[in-house]
Amino acid sequence: MLLEKINSPKDLKKFTIPELVRLAGEIRPFIVDVISKTGGHLSSNLGVVELTIALHYVFDTPEDTIIWDVGHQCYTHKILTERQDRFGTIRQNGGLSGFPLRQESKYDTWDTGHASNSISIAVGLAEAKKKMNKSHKIVTVIGDGSLTGGMSFEALNHAGHLKSDIIVILNDNEMSISKNIGALSSYLNRIMTGEFVSNIREEIKNITKKHPTVYKAAKYFEEAIKGFFVPGIIFEELGFQYFGPVDGHDLGNLTDTLKNIKRFKGPVLIHVITKKGKGYPYAEDDPERFHGISTFEMRTGNCIHSGSRTYTDVFGDTIIELAEKDEKVVAVTAAMGLGTGLDKFSSIYPERFYDIGIAEQHGVTFSAALALGGLRPFVAIYSTFLQRAYDQIILDVCLQNLPVVFAVDRSGVVGQDGPTHHGAFDLSYFRHIPNMVLMAPRDENELKQMLYSAYLYECPAAIRYPRGEAPGVPIDDQFREIPFGTWEILREGADVAIITCGSMVQPALSAADELAGEGIECTVVNGRFIKPMDRELLLRVAKQTGRILTVEENTFIGGFGSGVMELLSKEGVVVPVRCLGIPDTFMTHGSQKTLRNRIGLDKEGISRAIREWLKKE
Amino acid sequence: MLLEKINSPKDLKKFTIPELVRLAGEIRPFIVDVISKTGGHLSSNLGVVELTIALHYVFDTPEDTIIWDVGHQCYTHKILTERQDRFGTIRQNGGLSGFPLRQESKYDTWDTGHASNSISIAVGLAEAKKKMNKSHKIVTVIGDGSLTGGMSFEALNHAGHLKSDIIVILNDNEMSISKNIGALSSYLNRIMTGEFVSNIREEIKNITKKHPTVYKAAKYFEEAIKGFFVPGIIFEELGFQYFGPVDGHDLGNLTDTLKNIKRFKGPVLIHVITKKGKGYPYAEDDPERFHGISTFEMRTGNCIHSGSRTYTDVFGDTIIELAEKDEKVVAVTAAMGLGTGLDKFSSIYPERFYDIGIAEQHGVTFSAALALGGLRPFVAIYSTFLQRAYDQIILDVCLQNLPVVFAVDRSGVVGQDGPTHHGAFDLSYFRHIPNMVLMAPRDENELKQMLYSAYLYECPAAIRYPRGEAPGVPIDDQFREIPFGTWEILREGADVAIITCGSMVQPALSAADELAGEGIECTVVNGRFIKPMDRELLLRVAKQTGRILTVEENTFIGGFGSGVMELLSKEGVVVPVRCLGIPDTFMTHGSQKTLRNRIGLDKEGISRAIREWLKKE
Repeated sequence: MLLEKINSPKDLKKFTIPELVRLAGEIRPFIVDVISKTGGHLSSNLGVVELTIALHYVFDTPEDTIIWDVGHQCYTHKILTERQDRFGTIRQNGGLSGFPLRQESKYDTWDTGHASNSISIAVGLAEAKKKMNKSHKIVTVIGDGSLTGGMSFEALNHAGHLKSDIIVILNDNEMSISKNIGALSSYLNRIMTGEFVSNIREEIKNITKKHPTVYKAAKYFEEAIKGFFVPGIIFEELGFQYFGPVDGHDLGNLTDTLKNIKRFKGPVLIHVITKKGKGYPYAEDDPERFHGISTFEMRTGNCIHSGSRTYTDVFGDTIIELAEKDEKVVAVTAAMGLGTGLDKFSSIYPERFYDIGIAEQHGVTFSAALALGGLRPFVAIYSTFLQRAYDQIILDVCLQNLPVVFAVDRSGVVGQDGPTHHGAFDLSYFRHIPNMVLMAPRDENELKQMLYSAYLYECPAAIRYPRGEAPGVPIDDQFREIPFGTWEILREGADVAIITCGSMVQPALSAADELAGEGIECTVVNGRFIKPMDRELLLRVAKQTGRILTVEENTFIGGFGSGVMELLSKEGVVVPVRCLGIPDTFMTHGSQKTLRNRIGLDKEGISRAIREWLKKE
Repeated sequence: MLLEKINSPKDLKKFTIPELVRLAGEIRPFIVDVISKTGGHLSSNLGVVELTIALHYVFDTPEDTIIWDVGHQCYTHKILTERQDRFGTIRQNGGLSGFPLRQESKYDTWDTGHASNSISIAVGLAEAKKKMNKSHKIVTVIGDGSLTGGMSFEALNHAGHLKSDIIVILNDNEMSISKNIGALSSYLNRIMTGEFVSNIREEIKNITKKHPTVYKAAKYFEEAIKGFFVPGIIFEELGFQYFGPVDGHDLGNLTDTLKNIKRFKGPVLIHVITKKGKGYPYAEDDPERFHGISTFEMRTGNCIHSGSRTYTDVFGDTIIELAEKDEKVVAVTAAMGLGTGLDKFSSIYPERFYDIGIAEQHGVTFSAALALGGLRPFVAIYSTFLQRAYDQIILDVCLQNLPVVFAVDRSGVVGQDGPTHHGAFDLSYFRHIPNMVLMAPRDENELKQMLYSAYLYECPAAIRYPRGEAPGVPIDDQFREIPFGTWEILREGADVAIITCGSMVQPALSAADELAGEGIECTVVNGRFIKPMDRELLLRVAKQTGRILTVEENTFIGGFGSGVMELLSKEGVVVPVRCLGIPDTFMTHGSQKTLRNRIGLDKEGISRAIREWLKKE
């Protein structure tokens, strides 16, 4: 095994190209084997095995810097950079992160997770290096999907302006950008990046510089001619030198190209064509299913899962039911059709389904305009990614007061994807926006009824729910409106009122059961409306119990608990309140169960908090 | 006067082109006269007088829809759409808004104020109109500056994909995009938009469609040829038909072009060249000063202002002092060099000044990377515009825990610019982000020392301060570190503790003076650290007074007051707390004084709140 000879990228340098090819052949089954047991991002990682090898072969990392956009394609990078022995622990409690992590390795430049920021990082690092008189290379690898995020465009624009010394590798594996691969184009590319043409170019430049008009004309014709052969003119217009397309699975060609380009100055973009899932037939055939996958059987590609219904499934079914009722209902997502449960909807109602790509800002404003135009958009975006559209939610949805419904999936602790993916802030960032109605369902049936209710309310509304299985309660056939702004008492007890919402309702009920056995009687309130809150019920419960514990799967800062205290303060009611929530730090990765337990957001944590409180008094 | 004959755009239609030219000549002095008395956005409005006339002349508003990106160029639009008589009240208490406002007029499509969202709005409206089987035209007017915002690119990309039936007018008045105006180009443009060429185009299309290879080649060559004459190839690549450049002050040419283009289907971009400040020499010479200006003398162009120093001025001076001390200090702004007070810095240290254009997302991540590379970036962006970079603050600054200092100007009530410009949310959106240090100065001297202290702390930090004049205290020559996380007691009294920060410290002191005359003794605390708070001082004051009133110029939801309650709750201290802050609605425009008075955030409001509280007990 060649893989056994690799500890750090230095060890790669001794290999021949045929050996690198063998190495790629060893890495693929290694990744598939591990991810079949741990779950993870498979398709994207299988796509960049050769590209990653070529980068570490040609560049001198960590002095030369590689930035992985999103970072979900970093597995080969981790294997080649001193972490092969721990690769089996990836995404597990205490194990390697599934994304680059600075504290994990000097080879990891940035803690990534969201798309489209890598070029900005590269531009900043290049500028700092220039100011610090350092000259190492900065390379960023960005997928064609991430390139649709407007931030990428902002950064390309700025890089062209600053003439940043960066190499952007466009990893084109599927979408948007036309695939113009062919022998001629590939051939032209290799010649164009060679010394020969580079010298001629310089010479022509020198001659034409003395004759500005000729120079300008030559420049335009150069672009025109290139535009005929390659699809890179858009990057040239932004001030980049464009090269490509290059076959991203041809290690000889890749390393040649990178070696040539390493000598260039200024912003360069290399267009590399790769295949998602490459080398594992099941992933090649269905790359979206293997994008982020839980454990599966390697031999068959079948998922190993318990089969219970998730909140995502229930959203997916309910939006179809709503669409049947009202032809104005449309669904919007940002490159997450499968992940948000909209895949079924998109096949039944293709004309009413909008996948706007990784472009949350545009997606939210686009939806607001759909609503102004008379449609009823449901916007399904994960809690963490919706952060990108915070300003648009404020100004384009809530200021205009338009009936856009946000289906905020992956709220709270998401688990293995770690700090960039936890939905820890949504209750806080939604709650302070005027005109916004904010809800969280205690179970799948309530999710269904909340979606229907939000549809009826005809105002900006957000419904947040967690990743994973719902409690498994029966779902009503009929739609039923939840009275606006009301909570419900699930259990009565005189000692303390647990006021909670969403995913914390079940653990609160279990804790109340447990505590009842110890003689502590709890009231449990389903605070399903985070905004507006149920004033009357809150005041009654405060009076009856004299002690309130709020529990939420959201940062305790500015969230549900703070809302309860604000309302009590406004009403002049003085009663002791304690708040449980996600602590004010970035949580690591691990299983949802372990992480919730660690931060006290489960039955044990709730029981313990109440016991300790009452003991102290 | 022709202007007197205009009430609605219908009245325009009878005019001849020479009459439209006369009308433009009447509108300019009208605008200059009014704005010299009210203050407002002058340069941009003088630039689009002819364009606005031409749009209302050619299109049938309000059925045809015009969206103004940012909206600060809507004055001529307001004058032509039934609001001429009230134009003198613009931006004043109870008067017309300085931006489009739906509740003000059926001709206003969207409540705007932030840049780069207009194409998204157009795409959404076009899609809704298609679904509703309506066929009116949708036109958006966007400046070249706004086009650098990534959201614009996201929307162009989506429009090209959907083949949206929209007309984007690129109002190119200064920047980024090369100015390739000339007789030939203008001539070509008029010919190209005429029926003649359009017919030939269709014919060629039909022929070449039958021969796909020829079609492809023809398509490429068409672009190549156009690329030689016009700079629009980037838009063509995104699926738009590009026309231009057109002289935006030539009403004959403009109306001809618009009439021709009105007949086109699918996404069209018209590149219009205008001059900021056109027709008022002082504004033409210094368009940035007249971008957003307070009252001025029409004859001389001189500003009428009281001359006191603003927080912005003090930030501008202090950043220069810091830059003198440490060559690693750099400054970043988003197209707001003058507005944020960085103009002096940029002329002294051009190499250390980064204006990243209207691209806040990129700007924040770029700054984080500068910090990782060893520099010390200070990022000066207004509170409301920084909302655009909320996700980047979380993930690229705070998760990486990098020493980026945010100078958050225009926090709280900003006044005449209204709901899209108030900085009502920053304490709430910054406070719940882990690793963030959050401060607000009580006066200009404290601002200076906070900037210095943030520099010393070497962590993510934000300092928020209001628009306008500082209280006028003397500024220390020397820098002095503020002990991390500490508050200060400014006055002691046994009845109630007013804990406040930033702009509300002075009114709180005045209120305490007033109340002392009525026998009510207040403690006043300068809660200069919003995060972390001064635990020890808070507990002491809570114990001593038994009543806490928090006051902040920020939404009362999730802000400073909530932070005080969270800390007390965590410490198990039960004491009555009342919170004053901005109410949970979008505030209108008006003077800062009037608005603050209306929401009780001034001496009177604070005194009243305390009086009423104590009376009730």
